[in-house]
Amino acid sequence: MSQATSQAIFFHAGCPVCVAAEQQFVQALDPTRYRVEVVHLGEAAGRVSEAESFGVQSVPALVIDGQAFHINFGAPLSALK
Amino acid sequence: MSQATSQAIFFHAGCPVCVAAEQQFVQALDPTRYRVEVVHLGEAAGRVSEAESFGVQSVPALVIDGQAFHINFGAPLSALK
Repeated sequence: MSQATSQAIFFHAGCPVCVAAEQQFVQALDPTRYRVEVVHLGEAAGRVSEAESFGVQSVPALVIDGQAFHINFGAPLSALK
Repeated sequence: MSQATSQAIFFHAGCPVCVAAEQQFVQALDPTRYRVEVVHLGEAAGRVSEAESFGVQSVPALVIDGQAFHINFGAPLSALK
């Protein structure tokens, strides 16, 4: 099997919904295939535009191979600007 | 490392949002730790109540170790009854 390492980015803002999602979700990804970066947008506001470029509208969100998936609902990105 | 196999259930209803989530998301889970069951609630309406018991309110949703995560937004469960 060839298993390229893909990028996954978990965007969050420290909210309780975000933390629960991170703990359960991020650890469930296959570590042999995904290199996961966790980005706290409340502390890295400069990366909000990057999140938006992937189509992220709210946090927590997981971007896998460039595709955004919104998980539950924590906070809209507009609240982080 | 001890790696118990946990249960993950992906509930969907065949909608385009569901299919995209399934293809990207379910395959990203660590297969050595998660046994993933995919349930199409449009075809298995008898399992809607099971989904509800996990706190699922809309599909697509992924239940990991009994905890429900709603992914994007496809359809409310009420539309499937």
